[in-house]
Amino acid sequence: LTRGRKCVGEIGEFTLIERIRKILPAAGDKDLLVDIGDDTAVIRIDDRRAMLLTCDIQVEGIHFRFEHITPYQLGRRSMAVNLSDIGAMGGKPTYALVSLGLPPGFPVASCDRLFEGMRDELEPHRAWIVGGNLARTKDVLVVDITLLGEADLLRVVTRGGARPGDRIFVTGNVGASGAGFQVLAAFGKRFPARYKELVERHLSPTPRVDLGQRIARAGIATAMIDLSDGVAGDLYHICTRSGVGAQIREDRLPLPERIGEIAEKSGRSAIDLALHSGEDYELLFTVPPRIPADTVQSVFGESGVPVTEIGTIVERDDGYSLVDSRGNRNPLRPTGWDHFRSTRTEREVERE
Amino acid sequence: LTRGRKCVGEIGEFTLIERIRKILPAAGDKDLLVDIGDDTAVIRIDDRRAMLLTCDIQVEGIHFRFEHITPYQLGRRSMAVNLSDIGAMGGKPTYALVSLGLPPGFPVASCDRLFEGMRDELEPHRAWIVGGNLARTKDVLVVDITLLGEADLLRVVTRGGARPGDRIFVTGNVGASGAGFQVLAAFGKRFPARYKELVERHLSPTPRVDLGQRIARAGIATAMIDLSDGVAGDLYHICTRSGVGAQIREDRLPLPERIGEIAEKSGRSAIDLALHSGEDYELLFTVPPRIPADTVQSVFGESGVPVTEIGTIVERDDGYSLVDSRGNRNPLRPTGWDHFRSTRTEREVERE
Repeated sequence: LTRGRKCVGEIGEFTLIERIRKILPAAGDKDLLVDIGDDTAVIRIDDRRAMLLTCDIQVEGIHFRFEHITPYQLGRRSMAVNLSDIGAMGGKPTYALVSLGLPPGFPVASCDRLFEGMRDELEPHRAWIVGGNLARTKDVLVVDITLLGEADLLRVVTRGGARPGDRIFVTGNVGASGAGFQVLAAFGKRFPARYKELVERHLSPTPRVDLGQRIARAGIATAMIDLSDGVAGDLYHICTRSGVGAQIREDRLPLPERIGEIAEKSGRSAIDLALHSGEDYELLFTVPPRIPADTVQSVFGESGVPVTEIGTIVERDDGYSLVDSRGNRNPLRPTGWDHFRSTRTEREVERE
Repeated sequence: LTRGRKCVGEIGEFTLIERIRKILPAAGDKDLLVDIGDDTAVIRIDDRRAMLLTCDIQVEGIHFRFEHITPYQLGRRSMAVNLSDIGAMGGKPTYALVSLGLPPGFPVASCDRLFEGMRDELEPHRAWIVGGNLARTKDVLVVDITLLGEADLLRVVTRGGARPGDRIFVTGNVGASGAGFQVLAAFGKRFPARYKELVERHLSPTPRVDLGQRIARAGIATAMIDLSDGVAGDLYHICTRSGVGAQIREDRLPLPERIGEIAEKSGRSAIDLALHSGEDYELLFTVPPRIPADTVQSVFGESGVPVTEIGTIVERDDGYSLVDSRGNRNPLRPTGWDHFRSTRTEREVERE
């Protein structure tokens, strides 16, 4: 099948998605508001409501390893990454379908724990697993979850609305998950206790579903995305869809404690981990200049989650850059996102 | 992870699904009309409309092999099996999400063909791929499709409505796909031309989506299912959900031409292939006694697809049986459906 032909491993995920977009017809459906290109499709249900649709496939040995994560944690995490996508549109999760590819040697008890994790992650949102499919695999576990959500038709926040002059905000801190992964890679499961929080951020991320809904309801955001690919990769998705550029202020990035120690151990800088390591599942969103910073803060007031302004949307021609503490602009590489390229990206190196 | 513990390969798919059902909470949602247990979930959208949700995961080496099927055929087939599920509820397909696990060595051109196949299978239904997810795998292709559909809330046909006295009908003929698989197993791709139709039924099944909608609109069916696991396995799903038994008349089963030759080659009977080999993607449905056979035939009139009465629903205590041409009742094994048991089922033997 493969001899002498270009393989998916040689082209990027982006290039592949672009090819697929060209093959598929423009959907002849007026109810389809957002399709391929956002992580989440948006479909009009009626004059008030929109349905949200997202999915995420995770493969053992590529996305997770049972040396690091328990089946229960994996269940929670697999659901959390989908919840995060629904939250980033300002939606409320509703129903999930779970497809599993199970190797015959997978313990029944672990399968139980996996579903308990998914259930526990969904329960606070009053969302339910309503179906799915089980299949056999040769030797690795494959978890594919499709999650539906519902949103106010007029309040859905996509990736496509950022405008020059908008300020860029991020919830919580960034780089913690990447640092947590480095801890596991360096120490294994018996890592020093001081890194517990970083590791937990990697294994048990908290999707910002309620915050996403709050941001949407308050109408303060022109674009929003969840941080699955890293600030540099995910903000770039917003820039591409919105037709704009961006500047990130290096000294504004909210970093978790102890990220410096870990970055050093792995021969990288803390900023590099924060920008390019991904899987933080925080929200990044853009706010038009007319909305004062106080208003943004007030939306987060009761949540206890910090929100930080980290940069500005600029004209596309002004590029995509990182501004250091001396005010120097450096090109920002939109990497961290590519699962395919054989050329190693930050993310892949980090995963070895 | 596995040492000394019971593995999923040792228990059946049914047992596993029952365990999962016990772990998951009863959905506290009044709009959820059918959940785990049917292949397709049914959710009330408003007073008129129901949303249908189904998914199907297929793994290279387990569900398909590129020695037998082209990427384009695989694309069509993966979509067809989902279309079939929506059709079996009387629904119209609307939107699909495609999750792919791709090995790095998978040719880009094959990925194109795969999506072309999916597109071409969806197009006549005016349904669209609206999103998905790409991930890397080590060495095999994984295709997981989630398909949504819409149906008239009052016309949805589930597996749970069959009553004693209902007659059992099946569209088209049964066993062709299983026979086609045996042809490929025996001869490979260079099989004798006289088996072309059987092989095509296996590689390129036609989901009965329009017929399913027609049956639902006509209101003639108390229960319906598509034949993915074989008549014996799928009718058993209806019996379980409806709390009834069934009798199949052996001499009524509509068999395709040349199935006898192929069955003999593989040491099985044609009836055995028809009952236990699955993947025909015909519709099996039950019709209450008050509806005359003529009415059933008239629903199919314009379609050109034959419809055959093959048996009767009986009380649960009257069992699940096959009636031979001499009128003798033999227990009917509900096999063909189990992807998990290490003990080989018909389906697994047939797949080696």
